[in-house]
Amino acid sequence: MELYVLEHRLQVGSIPRDAIAPFTHGLVKLILLRDKTKCKFLSLTRTADEYSIIIDQEGLKELEPLSDQLSLVNSVWYAQNVSAGALGSGTGKASGITKIAKALILPLAEAQVPVFVMSTYQTDFILVQEKDLDTSIECLRSHFKIFREVEGETIEVPNSGSKGETTPTRGETNSREISHPLVAPPTRFSVTSLDPDTLPKVATILLDILFYADPSPEGSDADFFSFSIIDGDISLVMDTETLTRFPSNALFTSATGECWKMIKIGAVPLGFDECGIVAQVSEPLAEADISMYYISTYRYDHTLVPEEEMDGVVKVLLSRKAKINGAASSEGKEGEEDKDKTQSSSCTEGMDCSEAPSSAPVEREETMEQQDPTTSEPANTYY
Amino acid sequence: MELYVLEHRLQVGSIPRDAIAPFTHGLVKLILLRDKTKCKFLSLTRTADEYSIIIDQEGLKELEPLSDQLSLVNSVWYAQNVSAGALGSGTGKASGITKIAKALILPLAEAQVPVFVMSTYQTDFILVQEKDLDTSIECLRSHFKIFREVEGETIEVPNSGSKGETTPTRGETNSREISHPLVAPPTRFSVTSLDPDTLPKVATILLDILFYADPSPEGSDADFFSFSIIDGDISLVMDTETLTRFPSNALFTSATGECWKMIKIGAVPLGFDECGIVAQVSEPLAEADISMYYISTYRYDHTLVPEEEMDGVVKVLLSRKAKINGAASSEGKEGEEDKDKTQSSSCTEGMDCSEAPSSAPVEREETMEQQDPTTSEPANTYY
Repeated sequence: MELYVLEHRLQVGSIPRDAIAPFTHGLVKLILLRDKTKCKFLSLTRTADEYSIIIDQEGLKELEPLSDQLSLVNSVWYAQNVSAGALGSGTGKASGITKIAKALILPLAEAQVPVFVMSTYQTDFILVQEKDLDTSIECLRSHFKIFREVEGETIEVPNSGSKGETTPTRGETNSREISHPLVAPPTRFSVTSLDPDTLPKVATILLDILFYADPSPEGSDADFFSFSIIDGDISLVMDTETLTRFPSNALFTSATGECWKMIKIGAVPLGFDECGIVAQVSEPLAEADISMYYISTYRYDHTLVPEEEMDGVVKVLLSRKAKINGAASSEGKEGEEDKDKTQSSSCTEGMDCSEAPSSAPVEREETMEQQDPTTSEPANTYY
Repeated sequence: MELYVLEHRLQVGSIPRDAIAPFTHGLVKLILLRDKTKCKFLSLTRTADEYSIIIDQEGLKELEPLSDQLSLVNSVWYAQNVSAGALGSGTGKASGITKIAKALILPLAEAQVPVFVMSTYQTDFILVQEKDLDTSIECLRSHFKIFREVEGETIEVPNSGSKGETTPTRGETNSREISHPLVAPPTRFSVTSLDPDTLPKVATILLDILFYADPSPEGSDADFFSFSIIDGDISLVMDTETLTRFPSNALFTSATGECWKMIKIGAVPLGFDECGIVAQVSEPLAEADISMYYISTYRYDHTLVPEEEMDGVVKVLLSRKAKINGAASSEGKEGEEDKDKTQSSSCTEGMDCSEAPSSAPVEREETMEQQDPTTSEPANTYY
């Protein structure tokens, strides 16, 4: 398997929800006027109380003059991703970071490397801080052939020879407990994309949603909209109600037309130094072969799992001593707010998520097509 | 003839060209997300060194918190416009403020009322300061039946009885000299409009032009782009090169497909208290029955005249002792920069201005259709 360490020097930052105005000028340019900027990596996620941003150095220049309203993590991050071919080589049918949980997420957790995960429609990026990059590369050697991008060229990283292929291990890997409370809002999400050439057609819709959305009534956990444009690939994560605002033929949806449920991780901001948060959730879901996306933001992490797997997910997480608010469990803890929706297994509300465009794009799409929903067993057969 | 005093309480302001970023958030909302704002009157004109803005109180709220980068004239302005029917009742065939020069512009100049003029594709607005409004109404009584908008209702303004229909007069009306230097850049302009429903389709183009245009090499007098949205009517004034960036069917152009030349008035900012600036230019052009638009900005005024009338315009203005830079005159003062373009009478460069949309809109359009270009005499026959 091949792992690529991208050359973007990334910053992770946060802007309070009500302080976005001074940054709109730069962000509109970064999002809509691509030929005017050298930025190659931008992710902007609107949550109830912040805009979480991942941005390269060229992009950051567009936000200047930087004000104290933009909080930046005091380190540079490097994004790593795994080649699409490698993703397809796993045995399980699940997609997203489930594919890379054992080979990438777990070894980094074992090596005490904190990670920031950015799933997109196309792929998953695992971000590590600059100080952890060498450790990260060493501990992933046994799983991947590792390449680094240097000034646009891809070069293989030679074996340093010292530690070689030894990976730090921990005895009790399988009993990793979930350390943060989880919240599972009833909202249904869609993970989608659009052709960059289509961006102008949906510009006003995007602007409205990103910068002029009314604040949620009470800082809702379901208030979540993520836009990223990374090396030309656009990825969008939004609730299915927001999805209906886009013209039906503007967005790509996955071939399997899945809707996703979100599990927000953390009751207080997670910080950037704790290790193993992603592993705690991804390891048991990978064992159960359940697909998942994962989106870290400045304050909280967010797992997205297929709506029809939600019952199984809750069982799996409860078995790891998770405290879950808002999700129905098999133990009869029916969440009040989602009683109407949790059991629905099809995606018929709002826009029809199952409408796949004729021009089906990119790696993620291929990966997802390997999932045949007709052979999926019901969620609760996993336990 | 009927004159309407609109109820918008307008502010006139200026933002330095390089200080627009903090205002982009509010302006994008005002321009592109019309259903999110109560603003009814917005005009934004980008020149070489400033953004000149005319905005109502509701619009101004969207720009808060106001910074000292936004300079506002310390008074409220009221916009007056003349009914389309009245415009058509004149004897001449010329359009724009030529139609209202004698009945409105000259009387206000005689009455020592400084005005700010905002021509749009649809109509012309004559703005007067609140302190001058009563004087303005009194001196226009002899020419117009006057109405005021009050809370959406249009009510006729009763005659105050005191001064009645007496209009201040000045003996030497016909020898009004032009007091400010004029500059006539070679650039050709188009005055156009678009259906508000079309706005989303051209959103990224508009954003790019309005907020992310590269600064002109040396503060060019031809750097001019005006956007206004007034009671739902959109008006755009741009050079013909910029026009080519829009899809060919997106914009309305006048039925006669005219291109316009601009004459910038003033070498130093004109201020807001001097009377008669508009009259100095509009009176002789009206006498010569030459169509003209007029756009006041925070610093300078701008007259737009039909390209094919430019020779005549120059002669007329020179006869009023104007100092004109950059324009060819009949006395052989061929301007160097426009030697290739001044003589061209058709509008073939860039987009074809003569393409009229099937859905020809609004008053201005009707007015312009009364002009039959085939009967127009050559410019120099006026003198």
